[in-house]
Amino acid sequence: MRRALAVSAAAHGRTSPNPAVGCVILDAGGRVVGVGATAPPGGPHAERVALAEAGERAHGGTAVVTLEPCDHHGRTAPCVDALIGAGIAVVHAALADPNPVAAGGRERLRAAGVATRLGVLADEVARGPLRGWLHRQRTGRPHVTWKVAGTLDGRVAAADGTSRWITGPEARAEVHDLRRRMDAIIAGTGTVLADDPALTARRPDGSLHEHQPLRVVVGHRDVPPGSRLTGGDAVLHLRTRDPGEVMDVLTGRDLVDVLLEGGPTLAGAFVAAGLVDRVLLHLAPALLGAGPHALGAAGVGTIADIVRLDVDEVRRVGADVVIDARPAAGQDVPGVGGSVW
Amino acid sequence: MRRALAVSAAAHGRTSPNPAVGCVILDAGGRVVGVGATAPPGGPHAERVALAEAGERAHGGTAVVTLEPCDHHGRTAPCVDALIGAGIAVVHAALADPNPVAAGGRERLRAAGVATRLGVLADEVARGPLRGWLHRQRTGRPHVTWKVAGTLDGRVAAADGTSRWITGPEARAEVHDLRRRMDAIIAGTGTVLADDPALTARRPDGSLHEHQPLRVVVGHRDVPPGSRLTGGDAVLHLRTRDPGEVMDVLTGRDLVDVLLEGGPTLAGAFVAAGLVDRVLLHLAPALLGAGPHALGAAGVGTIADIVRLDVDEVRRVGADVVIDARPAAGQDVPGVGGSVW
Ligand SMILES: NC(=O)c1ccc[n+]([C@@H]2O[C@H](COP(=O)([O-])OP(=O)(O)OC[C@H]3O[C@@H](n4cnc5c(N)ncnc54)[C@H](OP(=O)(O)O)[C@@H]3O)[C@@H](O)[C@H]2O)c1
Ligand SMILES: NC(=O)c1ccc[n+]([C@@H]2O[C@H](COP(=O)([O-])OP(=O)(O)OC[C@H]3O[C@@H](n4cnc5c(N)ncnc54)[C@H](OP(=O)(O)O)[C@@H]3O)[C@@H](O)[C@H]2O)c1
Repeated sequence: MRRALAVSAAAHGRTSPNPAVGCVILDAGGRVVGVGATAPPGGPHAERVALAEAGERAHGGTAVVTLEPCDHHGRTAPCVDALIGAGIAVVHAALADPNPVAAGGRERLRAAGVATRLGVLADEVARGPLRGWLHRQRTGRPHVTWKVAGTLDGRVAAADGTSRWITGPEARAEVHDLRRRMDAIIAGTGTVLADDPALTARRPDGSLHEHQPLRVVVGHRDVPPGSRLTGGDAVLHLRTRDPGEVMDVLTGRDLVDVLLEGGPTLAGAFVAAGLVDRVLLHLAPALLGAGPHALGAAGVGTIADIVRLDVDEVRRVGADVVIDARPAAGQDVPGVGGSVW
Repeated sequence: MRRALAVSAAAHGRTSPNPAVGCVILDAGGRVVGVGATAPPGGPHAERVALAEAGERAHGGTAVVTLEPCDHHGRTAPCVDALIGAGIAVVHAALADPNPVAAGGRERLRAAGVATRLGVLADEVARGPLRGWLHRQRTGRPHVTWKVAGTLDGRVAAADGTSRWITGPEARAEVHDLRRRMDAIIAGTGTVLADDPALTARRPDGSLHEHQPLRVVVGHRDVPPGSRLTGGDAVLHLRTRDPGEVMDVLTGRDLVDVLLEGGPTLAGAFVAAGLVDRVLLHLAPALLGAGPHALGAAGVGTIADIVRLDVDEVRRVGADVVIDARPAAGQDVPGVGGSVW
């Protein structure tokens, strides 16, 4: 399943609106004979890619797959038919398919005499490459990651607007790696005017990654001609200040994973609208004491309305600290006991 | 040495201006026969406490001590004399004594035929209970820890000034544990007027720890009568806005470890003056989007002047994240490569 998870992660970003599934086929003796990931839309699912590589050797073997195989006649025939047809004896799936149209694969497999097991590495798969897709299945809208790079005191630029470089090269490389797994990157007109970002996914040498997310600009003002955004692929400019409207457009475009990269005003509006599903904070071990904030007005006026998060992970990346968090699951429970003062 | 380090940590906060040293005596057979820490000023040093417990059993034994034993006639006779007199055969010390008046212990021991070894767990001791004392030996002034509790977006209170509770009970308990190891706590008049802090070191049940740091208020305005600071022990009110003047007064009072707890304006002035030696950031996984900042103006106008830190440790404490950092050792080296944008 680790191998299946790895191939699914490698495909993440190129399969939307389909889930980036990974599949490994073992022959009856337990040797790996086929490995596959979901192809871009219209192409085969992971199971078919892996089965094609395995050929005859799949007979009596095991399929390890990150998502329950589909029983759904879409642009491709159901994967369960392919697995049964290839003579697979056992199927291990990490997650059940929450999509009512595609689900039911497990029952079909069982009925055909295939042993099935669900739940192997389920948490890792659900937090990893399938997170955005599962979110979209559940909520009907894309999953939004707000990424921000700031100092320990919550500034994203110095008082004069300069901001290169707050975080180090390792953290910046991670951002580009994240971008290429996204379907869209969103920035506000304020960031576009202040920083002239290209919003592309690049390698450390500056060359473009093969997959580029859709670039989305939000706000009434124009993108100045000659800015880096006007080069390269098309840019979607949404002349609105309403995060809900932005999400409606992106939902209509079949997007799954969206990266909100700025700036503070737009991020505050998304937080206030409850439209941030993941917070990825890149903290540089540095202090500024002045300059634009990481987050602008988010509708919180008093401490009782603070937006609580749960931390999934804290990592050190180069000299920086990355905090990966999500909106808190439970109700807001204020601490008990006396004041620290 | 671990044991010696632990007893030294337990004494930390009650020995200034003397170092909180820990000492363990082993008999000739390697059994622990005496354990001691530096007593409050005027009392015996760690070695004498441990030797007293060991008695005759110290003969031919080993002394494990976090700092090179002193060869200094102060309020107490030199520890080297006591070790030699007790017939100690081997001395392990973590750190050499940087104080020219007290140093030379190792040579005296060697001349008396005692084997000596230096450097065991030196880093841990230097980063631990002896950090402030070593700093004072080196610079002639107390060591300043700036502690701040804020949200991921760098706010220390909500827009309306409310701030209870940003961090959780575990992190708050750590702050009180830190306070009781300090010689003084400093707050600005702004914090005193906004939050009416007691600035005492308390147990989770609210009772006072035995050792209380000196409470220091900085700023021109009065501490309002009836505020919590006017109860209990005396408060030192320094009617200045100059961090250098504050440090001069604290230096004159023989203090070693000082905790700067607020607020943003005063902290900014200390950072600008280069008077913060350690940054202890308690980050609550929460967002506010408005409210007072963790750090006020620190003299940084452009990114080239950013105050770089080195991270010593990142820990999760309850639901919170604690980042322990210090001013960067080297020159400010900006990142290389293209912009993340
Ligand atoms: N370090 C980082 O990670 C990072 C990331 C991004 C930005 N930044 C910094 O952030 C600063 C820019 O801040 P910013 O707040 O101006 O950027 P922004 O949030 O990108 O843009 C704000 C603008 O977007 C429009 N807008 C869209 N939705 C809105 C809403 N709901 N409410 C209000 N306005 C909305 C408004 O312009 P219209 O008048 O055009 O509608 C508004 O002025 C720059 O200094 C940049 O360097 C840093
Ligand atoms: N969460 C936390 O860890 C934490 C900690 C502390 C404070 N806070 C929050 O911070 C807020 C208070 O902020 P604050 O900035 O007013 O607090 P502050 O820094 O404690 O006090 C500022 C005041 O100190 C005096 N002062 C001393 N040195 C100064 C200097 N070099 N430059 C200018 N003034 C100097 C000035 O008053 P005079 O006119 O009297 O000279 C100034 O108004 C409150 O909302 C509080 O809740 C949070």
